[in-house]
Amino acid sequence: MLKPFQQHIDSKLPFLKDKKLLIAISGGIDSVVLTHLLKLSHYNISLAHCNFNLREKESNLDEKFVKNLAQNLDINYYTISFETEKYAAQNKLSIQMAARELRYEWFEKIRQENNLDYILTAHHKDDVLETFLINFTRGTGLEGLTGIPETNGYVVRPLLNFTREEIEFFAKNNSIKWREDQSNTSTKYFRNKIRHKIIPILKELNSNLMDSFDNTLTNLNESQQIINDKISDLKDKIIITEEGTLKLKIEQIKELSNPKAYLFQLLKGYGFTEWNDISNLLNAQSGKQIQSKTHRVIKDRSYLLLTKLNCDTHNLNYKIDAKTNSFENSEFKLLFKNSKEHLPSNSSNSIVYIDKNLLNYPLNVRKWEKGDYFYPIGLGGKKKLSKFFKDEKMSILEKEKTWLLCTELNEIIWVIGKRLDNRFKITDKTTQTLKITHEKIN
Amino acid sequence: MLKPFQQHIDSKLPFLKDKKLLIAISGGIDSVVLTHLLKLSHYNISLAHCNFNLREKESNLDEKFVKNLAQNLDINYYTISFETEKYAAQNKLSIQMAARELRYEWFEKIRQENNLDYILTAHHKDDVLETFLINFTRGTGLEGLTGIPETNGYVVRPLLNFTREEIEFFAKNNSIKWREDQSNTSTKYFRNKIRHKIIPILKELNSNLMDSFDNTLTNLNESQQIINDKISDLKDKIIITEEGTLKLKIEQIKELSNPKAYLFQLLKGYGFTEWNDISNLLNAQSGKQIQSKTHRVIKDRSYLLLTKLNCDTHNLNYKIDAKTNSFENSEFKLLFKNSKEHLPSNSSNSIVYIDKNLLNYPLNVRKWEKGDYFYPIGLGGKKKLSKFFKDEKMSILEKEKTWLLCTELNEIIWVIGKRLDNRFKITDKTTQTLKITHEKIN
Repeated sequence: MLKPFQQHIDSKLPFLKDKKLLIAISGGIDSVVLTHLLKLSHYNISLAHCNFNLREKESNLDEKFVKNLAQNLDINYYTISFETEKYAAQNKLSIQMAARELRYEWFEKIRQENNLDYILTAHHKDDVLETFLINFTRGTGLEGLTGIPETNGYVVRPLLNFTREEIEFFAKNNSIKWREDQSNTSTKYFRNKIRHKIIPILKELNSNLMDSFDNTLTNLNESQQIINDKISDLKDKIIITEEGTLKLKIEQIKELSNPKAYLFQLLKGYGFTEWNDISNLLNAQSGKQIQSKTHRVIKDRSYLLLTKLNCDTHNLNYKIDAKTNSFENSEFKLLFKNSKEHLPSNSSNSIVYIDKNLLNYPLNVRKWEKGDYFYPIGLGGKKKLSKFFKDEKMSILEKEKTWLLCTELNEIIWVIGKRLDNRFKITDKTTQTLKITHEKIN
Repeated sequence: MLKPFQQHIDSKLPFLKDKKLLIAISGGIDSVVLTHLLKLSHYNISLAHCNFNLREKESNLDEKFVKNLAQNLDINYYTISFETEKYAAQNKLSIQMAARELRYEWFEKIRQENNLDYILTAHHKDDVLETFLINFTRGTGLEGLTGIPETNGYVVRPLLNFTREEIEFFAKNNSIKWREDQSNTSTKYFRNKIRHKIIPILKELNSNLMDSFDNTLTNLNESQQIINDKISDLKDKIIITEEGTLKLKIEQIKELSNPKAYLFQLLKGYGFTEWNDISNLLNAQSGKQIQSKTHRVIKDRSYLLLTKLNCDTHNLNYKIDAKTNSFENSEFKLLFKNSKEHLPSNSSNSIVYIDKNLLNYPLNVRKWEKGDYFYPIGLGGKKKLSKFFKDEKMSILEKEKTWLLCTELNEIIWVIGKRLDNRFKITDKTTQTLKITHEKIN
C-alpha cells in the first residue's frame, strides 16, 4: 500500500509535505504502519507515545517498543506517563474519556513547544465503520453517523481511506513488528463485538461493504453540509452577539418548522444534552435556565441567552470597613471618600453621596438574593428588589451582574450603579458625607 | 397491547375514527394481529388480500385463510390473483418490486371504487430497524435511514410504534392464528440475516436498542426536515417553472457550497441515479443530457432543464402529397392553400408563400438532424441548421421542438415557424403560389 498511500497524501493532503509531523503512536499495528509509511516516504516525523499506566508491565513494554522503534528508524520521540485512573476519578470521566483528554492535550502541548505542524493519528476506514455502528447501536443523530474528518485543525488522519486489511497486509509483507493491544475496556468489548460478530455478516451480505459505506458517508456528509448552510443563513437572521453573549430571538425560533431541531443545530458544541428542556425554554418563564458543564442558556423575555459559565460569584460576600478607601473585584471598583459636598443624592449612576453616620460597618458587597428589598430613593416606600428590576426592565444578565452595597445588618445602601436607598441619603441632619464612586472593570 | 394500541391511534391517528379502512393483509402474523386489534376497537374495516401465485398451494392456502378470517370476523374482503412473474418479466422488475407495484396499485383501485378512506399496512418498528440496516449495508443516504412514515397520503401504518415482540405476545395471549410466510426471496434472505444474526447481537450490546433507535430516527428525520427547509428556500431563488419545464439557474447552483449535494436534493424523486453525471452537466456543453426512466435533465446555456420524457418523435417522418390541404400531429397543424397572392416571402413566422412548382412531392415533415443545412432567406448562402439555431439563440428545448418541412429529396423548404429557404421563395418566375399556415397545438 506504499504507493497508494503516497498517491493519496500527495493528492489529498499535499500540505503535509516539508512540514514537521508528530505521529500519535500507541505501538499497535495501525500507528506503527503509519510511522513506517511516512518514514519510507521521507516525511519529517517525530513520535509521541502516552503511557497511560493502565496495564502495568504491558504499558511499560509498549513504551519500550516505541522507544526502540524511534531509535531504529532514527526519529525523534516524546513519551509521557499519566496517572489515568486518578485523573478520571478527579474529573468524573470514564477511563476512556480521561485517556482521550490527557492524550490530545499533551500532543498539542508537544506540538506547540517544539514548533511542529501537525498531529497525525492512524485511524482507518474500519475504525470509522465500527464507530458508525457503535454510535448507531447506542442511539445517535446525523453527527454520530458522519464519521471522522480527515483533517480537523492540526489533527490529520492520513490512513482514513485505507482498510485494516490493507494495513495488515502491508505489515506482513514488510515484516513489520507491532504490539498487540491487550486492553479490555468496555468500549473495547463493544468494538470487538461489532468488529468480529457484526461486520463479517454485513460483508457476507455485501462483498463491497467498504465501498458502499464510503458512499453512505459521502451522502451523509453532504446532508450535514446542507444543514450547516441553512444554520449559517439562520444565524445571520436570529442571533445577536453582545459582549460574549449570544442572544437568540425567541419569536423567530418558534416560527421555524421544528424549533427543537434548529436549537440543537444552533447550540450543539456547548456541551448540552437535554434538548427537550432547552426547547421548553422557548415557552418558559423568564429566568429559567439550562446548564451544561461549560455554558448555560437562559430564557429572558424575547431572547434565549447563551453565556459561558463563569466562576460563581453568587456566594461571595466582601467586607468593607470604615477605613477602606477603595475596593475592587474582577468586575468593578468602588472608591470611598469623605466629602464636604452636601449634594442631594438622587444620582442613580456612578456616584452617590451618603450620610456616613447612618452606616453600620463593616459594609457588605454581595449579589442580590430572593427576598431582598430596599427603599428606592424617590419612591417614598419599600420595594422588593425583584420588582425594582422588573420595573427597570433589566434583563436577566443585567440582574445577575448587579451588586449590592449593604450595611453590616444587611440593609441595602445602594443597588450599585442603579439606585440609592432612601434611608441613607444626605439630609439636613447629615454631618459627615461619604462619596462613593463606582467604576466598571472590563 | 390492545390498550396501548387504542391509545396510540386515538392520540396520533384520530382521523381514522369513523372512516372506512382497508387493511392490506397477507395472512402473516402482523396483518392478522392488526385486523384483530382494529376489529376489537370497533373500527370500520375491510380486508384486501393479493394472491401473487409465487408459491402454488401455499399461496392458495393463504388466500383461503384470509377468506375464513374475514367470514369469522364478519368483515368485507377483496382478493385478487396476480401473474407476478409474468408482470415482472414484462416490466423488467424484480419479483419483489413487481409484487409491490401490483399490490399498491390494486389497493388504491379498491379504495377508490368502494369509497374507502385509508389503506392500512401492518409495518412495525422491527421492520423499520431491519430496513435501516439493509439500506445501510447496501449503501444509502439520509433518505434511506429515516424510516417509513406513519402516514403517507392514503396509506397509514398504525403498528409502526410497536415491536414484533409485542405483536407476537398479543397473538399468543389471544390464541390468534396466522399463516407463516414460506417465501424465500433474496430480499427475504437478506432481511432474515439482519433479523436473526445482526439484531440479536446489537440487543446484547444495548438492551434498550429499540428506544435508542427511536431517538436516532427522530434525530435523522429532524435533520431531513432542516434540509427540506433549505431546499425550499433555494427553490424560490433558483428555479423557474415554464410550461412544465423546471429551469435551474446554473451559475447560482455553482455558487452553492456543494452543487452535487444540492442537485441531488433538488432533483431526487425523478428517478435519476447518476448524480456525478448530473453534477458534471453544470460544466458540460450545451445539449448534453442525462435521462432517467421518466425524466431528463438537459444542459442549456445558463440553465439545467428538467422535463418529462415524451414519446420520442425523433424518428417520425410524415409524408405529405400534393393534394393534401391540411396536416396535423400532436404538436402542430399545417394548412396548405393554393394562393393568388404573390407576396415576397420573408415572413419568418406562421405563414409562408412558396413557389409550388419547385417542390418535389411527397413532402416530408420531420425533426432536424445533425448535418442538416439550408439556405435561409435573406442570407444569400448556405448555413448549417445547428449554426442557424445558435445564431437565433434558441434553447435546446426550442430546437428539439422544431420541425422541418422538406422536399422528397430532403431539401429543407421551411424551418417551420422560423425561417423559409431561399430556394423555394416566390420570384418573378413563380406561376403557382402555395400558402402554408402553421398553428401550434397546446
